[in-house]
Amino acid sequence: MATEDNRVYIGKKPMMEYVLAVVTHFESGLDEVVVKARGKNISRAVDVAEVVRNRFVPDAKVRSVQIGTEKLTGDDGKTANVSSIEIFLTKG
Amino acid sequence: MATEDNRVYIGKKPMMEYVLAVVTHFESGLDEVVVKARGKNISRAVDVAEVVRNRFVPDAKVRSVQIGTEKLTGDDGKTANVSSIEIFLTKG
Repeated sequence: MATEDNRVYIGKKPMMEYVLAVVTHFESGLDEVVVKARGKNISRAVDVAEVVRNRFVPDAKVRSVQIGTEKLTGDDGKTANVSSIEIFLTKG
Repeated sequence: MATEDNRVYIGKKPMMEYVLAVVTHFESGLDEVVVKARGKNISRAVDVAEVVRNRFVPDAKVRSVQIGTEKLTGDDGKTANVSSIEIFLTKG
């Protein structure tokens, strides 16, 4: 199951930084890493998972993909719905 | 299982057009609709699935989400890898 330590949150940095973070988690001995993103970063989360699997950790598999909706509150106090994704990658 | 008739491909049109397409498929009697997208449209595909579930077809569930990589060949003959998603929505 996901603990804070095995989650990688996808933001606006270059994709390879997140790929490296996932690979480092696996190399540290974790057998599951969760790639998480919201909104427009969701596409990048899928890219990260696919690059990890296809190029760096060939024995990693997609155990599950969960999608959902989160409520975000802006600085003006208004709430907005934003889509989210969690990609569970397992190894070994 | 997916047939051509129950697939909705997400492109650059306004999101609600795709939401309407999915809703129309369900209303025509289909019990499964597959929302598909590639590249940057993946985020929009998740939005479409979430809006359908949360606002229009409350008994629709996400049966499965598949991610993958497809090879695209450009006009110049070069190939590029692009991530893809398939979201299987079922009802009833």
